[in-house]
Amino acid sequence: MLSKCGCPKTMLSIKDAVEAIEGRWKVLILFALSEKPKRFRQIAREVSGITDKTLSKELKSLEANKLVTREVYDTFPPTVEYSITPHGLSLEKVLDELHFWGLQHRKKVIGK
Amino acid sequence: MLSKCGCPKTMLSIKDAVEAIEGRWKVLILFALSEKPKRFRQIAREVSGITDKTLSKELKSLEANKLVTREVYDTFPPTVEYSITPHGLSLEKVLDELHFWGLQHRKKVIGK
Repeated sequence: MLSKCGCPKTMLSIKDAVEAIEGRWKVLILFALSEKPKRFRQIAREVSGITDKTLSKELKSLEANKLVTREVYDTFPPTVEYSITPHGLSLEKVLDELHFWGLQHRKKVIGK
Repeated sequence: MLSKCGCPKTMLSIKDAVEAIEGRWKVLILFALSEKPKRFRQIAREVSGITDKTLSKELKSLEANKLVTREVYDTFPPTVEYSITPHGLSLEKVLDELHFWGLQHRKKVIGK
């Protein structure tokens, strides 16, 4: 295990990552956007359980961390679309490992 | 990308995983314990910034999710030690990927 080294440096980089995707919603939003760019309403539908207020706050935080971009199109009425950035897409392996581990965790602990 | 399938099932397993290790502290505590079993004080020292109250709450939640066990030794005064479980250790790849991504994120976004 990488972490076996117990290095404070490894702890720091894990901390950086965890802070960028903190909470239960950010990775789910990124997952929804990894398919294709989406509008606010569509993300809200797919990330079940999230409120509009939280989604709006989380999208801003993801933008600040350069994981998501917000694009306004000059239509009538204006259209706003959110896309995952290449930096956000680089979380792919983290998402994959979370997915595999989540499957295992459901079998072992949640038991459904 | 796995997540490209956009399956609600994948979203569910990612959600399960995220909920088990939610917040900024749990993975750091698991990282500290992945080296060897430790006492409360030692974990508190290594996970810098965490308060005793939060550490206590997080350890209970990790216990409930079968990621950590708490062992009381019959010494005088009694000794309490926390260990990571095999299920907790199975988060290894998630931690590794968070570590790698965190290094990249620091370069790109935090810029230090």
